[in-house]
Amino acid sequence: MPEYSRDFFLNLDSQDSLAPFRAEFHLPEGLIYLDGNSLGAMPKSAKARALDVVEREWGEDLITSWNKNGWFHLAEKLGDKIAGLIGAGPGEVMACDTTGLNLYKLLSMALDMRPDRKGIVMEGSNFPTDNYMAQGLIGQLGRGHEIRFAEKEGILDAITKDVAVVSLTQVHYKTGHLLDMKAITDKAHAVGALVIWDLCHSAGALPIDLNGCEADFALGCGYKYLNGGPGAPAFIYVAKRHQGQARQPLTGWWSHAAPFAFERDYRPADNIWQTLTGTQPILSLSVLECGLDIMGRADMAELREKSLNLSSYFIDLVEEHCGGYGFTLATPREWDDRGSQVSFTHEHGLAIMQALIADKVVGDFRAPDIVRFGFTPLYTRYVDVWDAVSRLKNIMEQELWRNPEFAKAGAVT
Amino acid sequence: MPEYSRDFFLNLDSQDSLAPFRAEFHLPEGLIYLDGNSLGAMPKSAKARALDVVEREWGEDLITSWNKNGWFHLAEKLGDKIAGLIGAGPGEVMACDTTGLNLYKLLSMALDMRPDRKGIVMEGSNFPTDNYMAQGLIGQLGRGHEIRFAEKEGILDAITKDVAVVSLTQVHYKTGHLLDMKAITDKAHAVGALVIWDLCHSAGALPIDLNGCEADFALGCGYKYLNGGPGAPAFIYVAKRHQGQARQPLTGWWSHAAPFAFERDYRPADNIWQTLTGTQPILSLSVLECGLDIMGRADMAELREKSLNLSSYFIDLVEEHCGGYGFTLATPREWDDRGSQVSFTHEHGLAIMQALIADKVVGDFRAPDIVRFGFTPLYTRYVDVWDAVSRLKNIMEQELWRNPEFAKAGAVT
Repeated sequence: MPEYSRDFFLNLDSQDSLAPFRAEFHLPEGLIYLDGNSLGAMPKSAKARALDVVEREWGEDLITSWNKNGWFHLAEKLGDKIAGLIGAGPGEVMACDTTGLNLYKLLSMALDMRPDRKGIVMEGSNFPTDNYMAQGLIGQLGRGHEIRFAEKEGILDAITKDVAVVSLTQVHYKTGHLLDMKAITDKAHAVGALVIWDLCHSAGALPIDLNGCEADFALGCGYKYLNGGPGAPAFIYVAKRHQGQARQPLTGWWSHAAPFAFERDYRPADNIWQTLTGTQPILSLSVLECGLDIMGRADMAELREKSLNLSSYFIDLVEEHCGGYGFTLATPREWDDRGSQVSFTHEHGLAIMQALIADKVVGDFRAPDIVRFGFTPLYTRYVDVWDAVSRLKNIMEQELWRNPEFAKAGAVT
Repeated sequence: MPEYSRDFFLNLDSQDSLAPFRAEFHLPEGLIYLDGNSLGAMPKSAKARALDVVEREWGEDLITSWNKNGWFHLAEKLGDKIAGLIGAGPGEVMACDTTGLNLYKLLSMALDMRPDRKGIVMEGSNFPTDNYMAQGLIGQLGRGHEIRFAEKEGILDAITKDVAVVSLTQVHYKTGHLLDMKAITDKAHAVGALVIWDLCHSAGALPIDLNGCEADFALGCGYKYLNGGPGAPAFIYVAKRHQGQARQPLTGWWSHAAPFAFERDYRPADNIWQTLTGTQPILSLSVLECGLDIMGRADMAELREKSLNLSSYFIDLVEEHCGGYGFTLATPREWDDRGSQVSFTHEHGLAIMQALIADKVVGDFRAPDIVRFGFTPLYTRYVDVWDAVSRLKNIMEQELWRNPEFAKAGAVT
């Protein structure tokens, strides 16, 4: 292992082709923000965009904005921008609703397309909302569907001929492990099952090739790596070949074949508009575009390389400087096996994370024992990695985490 | 009928106790905006609020805003503010999602609570998204539920012992007719059915007493009379006595009994939180509060009286000045029978409305032949009624609506 130093990392920053992107984000003075995998930082352009939507589009143009300012087609316009980031084509993605709602729509469509199969393969340790949504749906349907929970190593074996749909998150919210989209999709298709990919922790974090993998359905989050703002609308992807083949059940008027005909009875659109439900929150949706426009200018291969460098250095430094303090790496070490975050388990993880936050290094904690650090190459510098570990080392050496203030639960979300 | 004049209306404005509210809204210079029933005007406070959420809460406080700036409880906080406007109590309302999604949740809950009944009573001429959502749900369930479409006069008779739920919009989006919430709710309960009230065109437009009427469920819109901004989140109401009695099927993690425990299996919250699904669009939700705070200071009885005066004068003036031009009043004349809008049918309605808009009087058109004018007492003046009809009279006298530009469909949403 080389002798690392702060200068070593400053030098990396000076050679970083992505470094100029940092100036496009607002970052609080002195803060090292390693939580962009939970809430992405604010593009500076968001301020002007929000003001313009409020003052001009809403305040001045009022109802005419639906046409004049493109509100009516905004979900589709942003969907097409997201499509470019995830290996999808125009007309395959909509920016709308929430990840959970989009999963619900897609699961329901997939089950309808495989009426004779009862199996749903999911990761038991996945972010719970996906599992909860599936449980809600099958409870509501009452047709004997069963969720087969598998963990990473058992997923391929769990995909058998009785499986209707495999619904997985590409990068795990806790450990950051990366699933093999191609291999899993191929296996599912080989047994006649469909696949839904949750891209919450991968869209904007690494190259994704939905169409290259022949994925069926996908969804993801607007407010993590896409920097769309708090609670920004999510996105939904339906491969062209499946559009018009199944109905999603949340049949609001925006999904109608002719929404402004005000017909009494429902007729579904036969394109991506069928995934819509109702009127989207225009202000939040408009601001999401600021993040997408920045991400759209980044080279995804460069971004992936920097992401893996940042996280690899972080792992190296924690092991070198904090090796004796009880951290266990929960994230796979191999580049092909992980996303853009690094997680360690530690029995005092909550208190340690709170001590770090008090020292202006923001990661987050996930019960029961995970400290989680997200690396967002557009605005995270190499020197931030050095500085973050320096502060962590100090906290461990000085046992600052033992401050009783840091043991209180609920202070970290 | 008295001799009306512009001075007569200016004099009414000078005596109007609600007149000071107008200064709290931004209204474009010279525009008479009679479309607040589609998109409410912008509270001036929305600009500062949006900026604060973007720059301070998102940009500076980042992820800590979930606790520090109250994002986590925002849906509930705003729900309680809405509760005060619709005769509900604290803990009975959440501001979240869209009207269609909230209807879907409530319909599903109601059907679960009446498993032996198959009937759903709805107005066939209702705003389509409600009917579409019901059709989507029963198609998905496949348990033989049937929608019994009735029109206003036939509603009470349609509510029979095989009806599980009556789902109605209190004020009709086209005609503006007002249904008798108490009588219909009583009839439904007498036969053992539940009632869902869609308050899209009544919340913020007239006094509503959900609990006084013993309503079961309700939902409504944030961006019409509540002035919450384009696509602002909707709201959902579940009477206390029903909370925890039925599951809504969109079981995202925010509806879990312990969302941050990250349990594998779903356990529903037993209070109003169970109506939530996922993370709300914080920027849009935050700005909604600006409209609610203004509405919360208005006396709803005064507001109702002004609303009815405005609309009555409008009807009188149209009939007096435009009586020979083929307008037919589609809105009930009786005060007890209508909401806060006036609609006329006219065979050239689309062209007439576009001519009006070109002359800076903004109402809207609803196919096939309805011209619709919404009266929002917080920012509409009596003199606006006079001026709007003067311009309409001129358009009809001069046949300005015959301009071929105005015959193009799609220009009015």
